[in-house]
Amino acid sequence: MSKRGDTWFFDRNIYVRAYASCVGKKENEGPLRGAFDLYSDDNRFGEKTWEKAESRMVELACQKALFKSKLRSEDIGCFLGGDLLNQCISTSFACRSLGWQTLGLYGACSTMAEGLMLGSALVEAGLEQNPICCASSHFCSAERQYRFPLEYGSQRPRTSQWTATAAGAVILDPDEGRVRVRAATAGRVFDPGVKDTNNMGAAMAQAAYETISSYFRDSGSTPCDYDLIVTGDLSLVGKGVVERLFKKDGVDVSRNYNDCGLMLYYMNTQDVHAGASGCGCSASVLCARILPAIEKGELERVLFCGTGALLSPISAFQGESIPGVCHLVCLEAIK
Amino acid sequence: MSKRGDTWFFDRNIYVRAYASCVGKKENEGPLRGAFDLYSDDNRFGEKTWEKAESRMVELACQKALFKSKLRSEDIGCFLGGDLLNQCISTSFACRSLGWQTLGLYGACSTMAEGLMLGSALVEAGLEQNPICCASSHFCSAERQYRFPLEYGSQRPRTSQWTATAAGAVILDPDEGRVRVRAATAGRVFDPGVKDTNNMGAAMAQAAYETISSYFRDSGSTPCDYDLIVTGDLSLVGKGVVERLFKKDGVDVSRNYNDCGLMLYYMNTQDVHAGASGCGCSASVLCARILPAIEKGELERVLFCGTGALLSPISAFQGESIPGVCHLVCLEAIK
Repeated sequence: MSKRGDTWFFDRNIYVRAYASCVGKKENEGPLRGAFDLYSDDNRFGEKTWEKAESRMVELACQKALFKSKLRSEDIGCFLGGDLLNQCISTSFACRSLGWQTLGLYGACSTMAEGLMLGSALVEAGLEQNPICCASSHFCSAERQYRFPLEYGSQRPRTSQWTATAAGAVILDPDEGRVRVRAATAGRVFDPGVKDTNNMGAAMAQAAYETISSYFRDSGSTPCDYDLIVTGDLSLVGKGVVERLFKKDGVDVSRNYNDCGLMLYYMNTQDVHAGASGCGCSASVLCARILPAIEKGELERVLFCGTGALLSPISAFQGESIPGVCHLVCLEAIK
Repeated sequence: MSKRGDTWFFDRNIYVRAYASCVGKKENEGPLRGAFDLYSDDNRFGEKTWEKAESRMVELACQKALFKSKLRSEDIGCFLGGDLLNQCISTSFACRSLGWQTLGLYGACSTMAEGLMLGSALVEAGLEQNPICCASSHFCSAERQYRFPLEYGSQRPRTSQWTATAAGAVILDPDEGRVRVRAATAGRVFDPGVKDTNNMGAAMAQAAYETISSYFRDSGSTPCDYDLIVTGDLSLVGKGVVERLFKKDGVDVSRNYNDCGLMLYYMNTQDVHAGASGCGCSASVLCARILPAIEKGELERVLFCGTGALLSPISAFQGESIPGVCHLVCLEAIK
C-alpha cells in the first residue's frame, strides 16, 4: 500500500506534461494579466449563452493544453473534470466535442485538485498514460444559478466572492514534464455550521485546515518544507480562519501560505470583495501562475489545496449549513 | 500498461467484498421485492424533505454495506459516488455524516459504474484497500428538479421513465469477495440528437452501443461470452435501439441482454411507462439482483453498463440535444 493515513504517496513518476488556461476579460485585467494562454473580451466567447460560453472555455483550455503537450488527440486516455453548473453541463457538452473518454467529477471548486489526484492515481495504476484534468466556472452562469439574475443587480456583502470566468486543463505523463505529482490527500466533508451563502470562505476553511493537517501528519512534514501552500478559493475570510486554526495548534503557516482567490484579481480596485472563487479560480491560477513558477525554479515544493463548498440553492433554502471539502496535491520541481 | 484500446484490464485481484441497497415503497413492490437490504414505506425516510430523504438513503445503504463487510468504519479508505441533484447534495450531505474521505463523481445515471471503475483503479494502484462506491436517486427530488412540481400532476408520455427511489453501495477489497472486477471501459460522450427530455433511453442508447462495442473489440470477446449484458436505464425504447444498432453490425445481443430499467418494476401494472431510470436504478438492481446472482453461481460473467443522460433543464431550455455516456464494468464469479 502506498497510502499512509489519508494520503496517497505515488511510487511511480507522474509528471505534469502540459497545461493551459482560458479566462475572461476581468481575469485578464488582474495581476496575472498576460500569463493566461487564452482570454476573451467577450464573456460569451462567441456563443449564444453563458453556459455554452463556459463549455467553450473548457474546449479551448483542453485544446491548448493538448497543443502544448505535442501529443495527438488520440493519445489522451481520458478526461477527468467538472464544473459548478447543475448536472455539470459545461463539462459534458465540451466532452461531446472533445471526444475523449469522460469521467465526470463533482468536487465543487475543489474539482481541479480532485482531477489531478485521480488522474495521478490512474497513471500510478498503469491504466492511463496521458489523462487530462480540467475544471471551469463562469461568473454569469454561476451567478444566475446560485444567486440572482444579473439584471437584478443585487447588493453583494463584503464577505462575498467573485466567481472566476476561467478554465484550466492539465495533462499528466509518466515520463515527461518538469513538475512531479508526489502525493495527494483526498479530503473529508466538514461543516462548521456556516449558513450564509455569501460567506463560503468561512464554510470551507475548516475542511482546508483538516486536509492540510492530515497531510502534514501523514508525510511527517511541516509548513516550512514547502515554498507555497495554496488553497483554492478561501479568499480573505477563509484564509484568516485557516491561519487562526493552525495557530491554535502552534503552527505558523502565514509565511508561505496564500490563496488562489487572492491571486486572481486586484483586491483593491477590481470590486471582488473577499476575492475570487469558482472551480476556474484555482484551475486557472494553477496553470497561469503556480505551475510556471515551479517550472522556472521560483518554487520547489507546493501544496495545491482545492477547496469546495458543497451546497446547492435548494440545500440553502431548506435551512442547511454549508459543508466544505478540500483535496490536496503535492507538486515538486524536477531538478 | 494494462489498458488496451479504451479498456482497463485489472492485473490485481479486485473483489466485491460487500454491498447493500436501500429503496422506497414502489421499488419494493416490484419483481425484486424482498431482495433489497432496506426499504421504507415513507418516501421521506423520516426526514423533512425529499432531498434529505435521498441523503438518508445514501447513509443507510453505505452503513448496511459496511455492516455486511465486517469492516470498521475507519477501514473505508474513501467514498466514490454521486447523484442527480444539483451540486450532488444528497451525496455531499450523506458524506458529512459518514465521515469518509470523499471523491464526488458526476456521471448522471452511470455513476455506480463510474464509481466501481475508479474504485477498482485505486485498488489496482495499491492506493486503496476498501473504497466504497455509491449512487442514489429519488423520484420526488428528481421530478421536481428536472420536470414539474409533483402537485402539478403533469401527463407523462409513453417514452418517459420513472426515476427510482433507490441507493446502492459496494465495498471493494483486494483479498476478499466472491465477485471479481476484471475490466472496465470508460465511455465517451455521444449525442444522437434527441431533444425530447421524456425520451432519455433513446438519447443514451448510442453511448451504450459504442462503449459495449469498444469493450468487445478491446477484449476480443463476443456477447455469447457473457451470461448477462445489462445496461443501466435505457428501458424499453433505448434497449430496442441498442439491439438494432448491434444487429446492423451482424451481432445478436438479444439472447442475454437486459436493462436494469426493465428489472425494477412490473412493467404492466406499476405505471412506469418505458421503465425505471436514475442513478439508483442500476445501483440498486446491481446490489439486489446482479451481484447476488453472481455469488450464487446463477451468473458467471456479467457486463454491467451504467448509462447516463448528460442534460440539465437549462441545457434543454436552451435547445440543446441530450448527450449520453456509458461506463462498463466486467464482473466475474470466483469459482
